Amino acid sequence: MMGSIGAEMQDEILRKADVMAEACPSRQILNHVTSRWGMLVLLALLGGTQRFSALKRRIGGVSERMLAQTLQLLEADGLVHRHAHDVVPPHVDYTLTAPGRELAEKVVGLTGWIEANLPRLTPAAA
Amino acid sequence: MMGSIGAEMQDEILRKADVMAEACPSRQILNHVTSRWGMLVLLALLGGTQRFSALKRRIGGVSERMLAQTLQLLEADGLVHRHAHDVVPPHVDYTLTAPGRELAEKVVGLTGWIEANLPRLTPAAA
Repeated sequence: MMGSIGAEMQDEILRKADVMAEACPSRQILNHVTSRWGMLVLLALLGGTQRFSALKRRIGGVSERMLAQTLQLLEADGLVHRHAHDVVPPHVDYTLTAPGRELAEKVVGLTGWIEANLPRLTPAAA
Repeated sequence: MMGSIGAEMQDEILRKADVMAEACPSRQILNHVTSRWGMLVLLALLGGTQRFSALKRRIGGVSERMLAQTLQLLEADGLVHRHAHDVVPPHVDYTLTAPGRELAEKVVGLTGWIEANLPRLTPAAA
């Protein structure tokens, strides 16, 4: 991906990237990652390549429609790779890309903190 | 907050906390934090106490309604403290609680990664 834009453009993007700015592309990616299901998909894929049905079982409460939509967005962001194997019956699975894996580690930092600190948060939530 | 539940209950909560489980309270908090605006509010408050109007200016694109709703959820989770000063005209401001600050640091890990790695992601997004 790095080859598709010049070094100057990359510097420009880096200097300006600001999730607080509504129009910044980083905000768009943040929205995908923090969609209701984006984080949990990244987290589930940290365990390795998975088929759609396995992801659906792993992520409590996700619908087929929402899971498919989330995977499409993450694939378009270059965070998830979709692999359709050329076999009968069809077999499709999903893997984190290299950037996807790095981002998923950051997600673990966040979700792990929430899980570990649940008792410190409000009694209502705990 | 720690005093409100027994040590055994805390161990129980810690052992079982699992964001993948739909019914786990940690999922509820994750949903609040990763609401469309939750992350950006936590991030904005890392800079220190802020009034509603300053938060609204800082976070590009947020509506008054969504900002108010997000602050209420984060306050209920024990992540944000709302302080209504006893003055005329009324003056209300918002501060991160100690757990809120810790969580906000994890959010920085995530949003900082996205900002710094934007050029590596899809050309469409960059």
